[in-house]
Amino acid sequence: MRRNLSLAPRFRLHPFVSSFLLQSDSLSLVYQQDEEKLAELTSQLTTEDEKQKFVLKTPKGTRDYNPRQMAIREKVFDTIVGSFKRHGAETIDTPVFELKETLMGKYGEDSKLIYDLKDQGGELLSLRYDLTVPFARYLAMNKLTNIKRFHIAKVYRRDNPAMTRGRYREFYQCDFDVAGQYDPMIPDAECLTIIHEILKDLQIGDFLIKVMWLASLTCSLALCPPPSVALVLVCLWQTIKFKFSVTHPSPPPPPPHTHTHTHTHTSVALKTQLPSSEKIVCNEWQLWSVRRLKISFDRRLAFGISSEISFDMSLARGLDYYTGVIYEAILVQNSPEALQNLQGEEPVTVGSVAGGGRYDGLVGMFDPKGRVVPCVGFSIGIERIFSIMEQKADASNAKIRTTETQVLVASAQKKLLEERMKLASELWNAGIKAELMYKKNPKLLNQFQYCEENGIPLVAIIGEQEIKDEVIKLRYVATREEVDIPRGNLVAEIKKRTV
Amino acid sequence: MRRNLSLAPRFRLHPFVSSFLLQSDSLSLVYQQDEEKLAELTSQLTTEDEKQKFVLKTPKGTRDYNPRQMAIREKVFDTIVGSFKRHGAETIDTPVFELKETLMGKYGEDSKLIYDLKDQGGELLSLRYDLTVPFARYLAMNKLTNIKRFHIAKVYRRDNPAMTRGRYREFYQCDFDVAGQYDPMIPDAECLTIIHEILKDLQIGDFLIKVMWLASLTCSLALCPPPSVALVLVCLWQTIKFKFSVTHPSPPPPPPHTHTHTHTHTSVALKTQLPSSEKIVCNEWQLWSVRRLKISFDRRLAFGISSEISFDMSLARGLDYYTGVIYEAILVQNSPEALQNLQGEEPVTVGSVAGGGRYDGLVGMFDPKGRVVPCVGFSIGIERIFSIMEQKADASNAKIRTTETQVLVASAQKKLLEERMKLASELWNAGIKAELMYKKNPKLLNQFQYCEENGIPLVAIIGEQEIKDEVIKLRYVATREEVDIPRGNLVAEIKKRTV
Repeated sequence: MRRNLSLAPRFRLHPFVSSFLLQSDSLSLVYQQDEEKLAELTSQLTTEDEKQKFVLKTPKGTRDYNPRQMAIREKVFDTIVGSFKRHGAETIDTPVFELKETLMGKYGEDSKLIYDLKDQGGELLSLRYDLTVPFARYLAMNKLTNIKRFHIAKVYRRDNPAMTRGRYREFYQCDFDVAGQYDPMIPDAECLTIIHEILKDLQIGDFLIKVMWLASLTCSLALCPPPSVALVLVCLWQTIKFKFSVTHPSPPPPPPHTHTHTHTHTSVALKTQLPSSEKIVCNEWQLWSVRRLKISFDRRLAFGISSEISFDMSLARGLDYYTGVIYEAILVQNSPEALQNLQGEEPVTVGSVAGGGRYDGLVGMFDPKGRVVPCVGFSIGIERIFSIMEQKADASNAKIRTTETQVLVASAQKKLLEERMKLASELWNAGIKAELMYKKNPKLLNQFQYCEENGIPLVAIIGEQEIKDEVIKLRYVATREEVDIPRGNLVAEIKKRTV
Repeated sequence: MRRNLSLAPRFRLHPFVSSFLLQSDSLSLVYQQDEEKLAELTSQLTTEDEKQKFVLKTPKGTRDYNPRQMAIREKVFDTIVGSFKRHGAETIDTPVFELKETLMGKYGEDSKLIYDLKDQGGELLSLRYDLTVPFARYLAMNKLTNIKRFHIAKVYRRDNPAMTRGRYREFYQCDFDVAGQYDPMIPDAECLTIIHEILKDLQIGDFLIKVMWLASLTCSLALCPPPSVALVLVCLWQTIKFKFSVTHPSPPPPPPHTHTHTHTHTSVALKTQLPSSEKIVCNEWQLWSVRRLKISFDRRLAFGISSEISFDMSLARGLDYYTGVIYEAILVQNSPEALQNLQGEEPVTVGSVAGGGRYDGLVGMFDPKGRVVPCVGFSIGIERIFSIMEQKADASNAKIRTTETQVLVASAQKKLLEERMKLASELWNAGIKAELMYKKNPKLLNQFQYCEENGIPLVAIIGEQEIKDEVIKLRYVATREEVDIPRGNLVAEIKKRTV
C-alpha cells in the first residue's frame, strides 16, 4: 500500500514527473483524438537539460533477483521449508533491525561487521547479523522455554563480499532451532538429520557434515575441579557411543595426557589460561578421537545418516555463543568413495553451506533473571546453494518458467478486446491462471509467440464465429492441435490439460 | 549458515557463556552420572552480579510474528500470491537497502521518514521506503521495457506508529505492477480487477475502491495551452465512459467553470499557480463528476467488477511519482446496501488497505537517456488485513494449527527411544510429517496431550509386542480409535487418513 496516498500534506508535482507527463501513456490516452498536437507539445516540453546523473546500481555486496533466479530460489525454499515442516517446526518472524544493545557482545570481533542505522533521534538500531540472537531475544522476551521453530530471512554483514562465490553482504539464512530442556542429544541428532535430509533433497552434490563437541569439552575442563575431568571425558565418550552407535569393540580409555594438562585447571580462577591449554588438550584429543571415531563410525546411527558425517577436531572454533556440539556442512568435490577413505586428509571443499550448534547460554543473557533455555540449531546458507543451482540450470540449458500461466486468451480478429477481457475474467473466477495481451488488436502470430516464449501451454482463441457458436478454439501450443470446446466445458478442459 | 564458523580468528568464550555453562543442557549430559556434583557446582558458580540489564523489546513500531500470527500471515500471502500468479505475474526481489541517492527526490516531504544507515565507510545507504522506486531502479538498471511482476517484501518508514491499527514502521507491501507501452487502460483495468479479486478472496468485509485521474488531469491543465483544456476533459470523460461502460444516456458537457479557471494557466510558466487553482478546479470537477459517475456507474465493466468501485475526487493527492490514474481501496463498515445509496456521503471507513496508480515518469528518472517506461501498479497493505484476520480468529475461537505434523511417533514403554527414532526416520523418508518427543521415556499420556495441544491427528505407537508382531498401533486422536497396522502399510494408511 502506498500508505500515504491520502495523507500527503499537499499536492505537489516533482519537476521530472511534470516534464515526462507529455511523453506518457496516461496522457497519450487523454490526447488520443489529438495526437498531432501531442507530438508538437512533446517536442516543445522535453527537458533534456534537467536530467540528473544517477549511479544505477545496488549497494555493494547486494543483488537483485530476477524472475529466473526467483524461480530457482522458490524451489530451494520449498525443499527446505518442506523438510522443516516434515519435522514439525513452527515458524516465526522478527524485525530486520534490533536495538543495537541486543546485538552487542554476541559476536566477538565480528561485531565490527554489523550495519548500524543512523541516529535520527530515538533508539539506536542495527540490522540483524544472524537469526539466532533475535531468536534468543524473542524467547526471553516472551518467556518461552520450549519451541521448535524455523525462520527464513535475510541477514546483514559488512563483510568483504565475494559475490561469484555466493558471498554477499545481504544474504538469506534458513534457521531451524529447538529450544527446551530435553534428554541429551535427541534434538541435536534431529538437527543433523534435517541438514542431511535437505542437502540430499537439494541434489547439489557430495557433502560432509563435520561434528564436534570441543567447545563444550574445553569449557568443562576449564571450569571443573580436577577430579571431574576424567569423568567428563568418559561421559562424553559414552554419549557419542550411545547416540551414534559407534561399533568399536570396547570403549577406549580417556585420551592420554588429558590429566596432565587438565591438572593445570585447578579452579575457576584459572579460566584465563584457557587459550593455551585448550590448544594442547585439543591436539591430544584430536589424535586420539579422530582416529577412533573415523575408523569406527558406521551406518548404525539411529537416524540412519552416518555415511556423510565425520568427527572433525579442526572445527574447534565458533561464534561466541556456542556452548556444546558444533557442526558444519561442506560441499566436497571428491567422489563418495574417496570420502570413505579419507585417512585423515581433508577433502577438497567448495565451501560451507550449513553450520550450527548448541548455545545454551544465549537466552539467559537476555533474561532478567538469567533463566537458562538450552538451544540447539543450525542455519542453511543458501546463497552458495543458489549459485550452484543457477550454474546447473545454465549448464543444462533447461527452460525455467517464471510464471505459471496455463492459458493465453487470444483473438485473431480486431475489436474483440472486451470479449477477451470477459473470457479472461471467467477463467480467473474459475481459478485458471490466464493472461491476455495488453493490446487492443494484437496479431495472432504475436500471441502464439508470447506463449512459446513464456512456456504457456494453451491458447483460448475467441472470434466472431466462436462467439456465435458459443465455443472457444483451444490450441495446444506444443502440438499446434486446435479443438473447438463448448464454452461451458472450457474450464474443465483447461484443468484436465494442465495438471 | 553461521558463516564465520570456521573463520573466527580465535576461540574465545564470552564470560556470560562460561558462567552459564554449568546450568546448561549440554553440560548436564556430560555430567549425567554425577548429577549431585553438578548441582553443587552450579550453586557455586552462579554469577548473579555479572548480569547486565537489557531492554527486552523490539524497536519502536516493529513487532515479532509468533507462530499463530505466521499461520495467518501465510494464509493471507497464499491468497495474494495466488491471485498474482493467476494473472501471469513473475516475481523479483531487491535488497532491503538502496543507495541513498536512489531514493532521493521521489517522496517529497515524506523523505524525512526514510531510515538512513550510519556512515560506516563506503556508500551511503537507506532502507527502502516502498517497492515502487526499487522496481523502477531495477527496470532502468536492466534496461527492461516491459514486465508484469509482483514483489512481496518489507518496507520501512520512520512514521508515527499506531500498532493497534496495523500501522507499523516495518511493514509488508505486496506489489503488483505492469511496465510497458500498451494500449490505454488495459493493464490499469487488470490492476483494479486484481485488487478486487484479492479483497474478495480475503473475506475481510465490505470494501470500496476509489478511482480517479485527477493528478494527470491537473498536470494537463497546468501544462497545456488553453485551447487543449476542454479537449483534455472531453477525452478523459470519453475514456472513462469507454472503459467503464458508464450508462449515462448522453455524455454531459465538460464541467462548468473549468474554462474560467484553466484560462488562468495560459502557459507552462504559470505552473507555480497550480496549488490554488487546482483546488478550485478540483471542487468544481468533484461536484460535477462525482454525482454523475456515482449515479451512472453500473455492473457493465468489462472485467465485471463495477459494484465496489467508485469515482472519488477527494483522492486528489498522491506520492510524487504518480502521473495518471490513482486508486485506493478502503474497508467500509457500512452494509453493502448502504453503499449503493451513498448519495454523496462518505461511508464509515476503517482504513486504506490498498493503493496505487500510474507512474509513467519514474523509470525515466533513473535512465541515463531518460527513456520512458510507462508503469501502473498497486500495493496491498497487509498489516491492517493481518490485524483484521487476527481479530476474526480470536473472536471465532477457531484453533489455528501452527505446524502440519500428521503423526506423533510414541511409545508406552521405556527404552524405546532408538525404536522411535528409527520409525520417525522411516516416516520422514517417506515424506510424512512426523514428530517424536525429545524425552528418553515420555509418558504415554503426555504424548497424547501433546497431540491434542498441537492438533496432531494421529499417533503411531510402538511397543515391544508391536516390534515382535511387525505392526504399529495407529491411534486416531479425535475418536481415540486404535488399529494395528502392518508396518509396511503404515505410510499409506497415514497418507489416507490425513489428506
